Amino acid sequence: MKQEVKALLFDVFGTVVDWRGSITREMNSFGVTHNIDKDWQQFALDWRALYQPAMENIRSGNRGYVKLDELHRENLALLVDGYGLSHLDAHQLNHINRVWHRLQPWADTLPGMYRLRKNFVLASLSNGNVELIVAMAKHSAIPWDMVLGSETAQGYKPQDKVYLHSAQMLGLKPEQCMMVAAHNDDLKAARLLGFKTAYINRPYEYGDAQTDDFEAQESWDIIGDSMTEIADALDC
Amino acid sequence: MKQEVKALLFDVFGTVVDWRGSITREMNSFGVTHNIDKDWQQFALDWRALYQPAMENIRSGNRGYVKLDELHRENLALLVDGYGLSHLDAHQLNHINRVWHRLQPWADTLPGMYRLRKNFVLASLSNGNVELIVAMAKHSAIPWDMVLGSETAQGYKPQDKVYLHSAQMLGLKPEQCMMVAAHNDDLKAARLLGFKTAYINRPYEYGDAQTDDFEAQESWDIIGDSMTEIADALDC
Repeated sequence: MKQEVKALLFDVFGTVVDWRGSITREMNSFGVTHNIDKDWQQFALDWRALYQPAMENIRSGNRGYVKLDELHRENLALLVDGYGLSHLDAHQLNHINRVWHRLQPWADTLPGMYRLRKNFVLASLSNGNVELIVAMAKHSAIPWDMVLGSETAQGYKPQDKVYLHSAQMLGLKPEQCMMVAAHNDDLKAARLLGFKTAYINRPYEYGDAQTDDFEAQESWDIIGDSMTEIADALDC
Repeated sequence: MKQEVKALLFDVFGTVVDWRGSITREMNSFGVTHNIDKDWQQFALDWRALYQPAMENIRSGNRGYVKLDELHRENLALLVDGYGLSHLDAHQLNHINRVWHRLQPWADTLPGMYRLRKNFVLASLSNGNVELIVAMAKHSAIPWDMVLGSETAQGYKPQDKVYLHSAQMLGLKPEQCMMVAAHNDDLKAARLLGFKTAYINRPYEYGDAQTDDFEAQESWDIIGDSMTEIADALDC
């Protein structure tokens, strides 16, 4: 298996970066500065909860492809009243919306990825749009060789075309690609198309609110608790 | 201008890498090993001469989009008889075809780009396909933040859509992008669409066979003799 795999394709939100912690930390500071006393971790969770329904509207064909930055902005608009943000101007709200461009990696992410990059092509296979993933990589030194996924394929995971188009852009067959994700559903979709699979356990992605993905639900090709364990398993 | 520009988009063949020198060096070694005595610099020039006609066939609409790896392979097939390569098998010819994945940067390229990457998003805007540009970057440590251009836009420069789609994928307006190229025609097309422009003089790209691009033919925003001079001009 190790010889056959040429590229590792990564889920990003939750697998590579800690969206809950990053948004909570930044909004805690924002709340203090702007004197808005709210539960900003709940804000992060509420914002994230609007993510799947917004994408489902596109996956189902009800709506044409819209990139994630715009979906996030629309969803943020649904939260401003409840979180005391309705007095902010467009510039300030756009800055908050771009917190997704500033998400920070888990502590093990960069040490693992900088080992993996020596032997594999590393590409994002995320529902994030290109600008978002590129900005995040610039912000946190994430060593992508290529940014793929939703926008380049004009769809949203777990649609088949997002996985297949990404492999195709790298000139690879599905079995030469390994999907790396903290979400069993993502790996399930990738495996059905022939991808190899690596599961990273992230039981704190949602904090106390986590309800799923506490463990590997299938015999994924690699199962680990960190990106460095994935690197260990791949002899990097 | 410097404040407005967010991303530098680079022509690759001739601007970032020395295709003539790289192919000549590799084929000189190949010729010695395989006992084939040919002028391998002429081979590189002949192969490159078939590049524009092959793309023109696609730009004109005579043929649907085909990625550059395949055009290179078709063009190589036209040269095998004249260069004593007709006895090679498909595996060997595919290895030769992938010499384009192993092109080496000019001596000033990496020192300049590693300075520029601190302040700008660096993206390829090449006629090379994604697999080719990613493999080349891996081979020579070229620090792309994103690989764009021909394949992601499904066209070939100087078609407008290749420039415009690339800017759009980065979430930028054309005037926030600077095209960096050693070819006046490439910059001319980019400028007409609103891009900023940087010219790098590469008067030896074709060696003694060079017939054009000995100097800047318009008042490009930046004009330099190396990637490090471009970095100087952009205060990096």
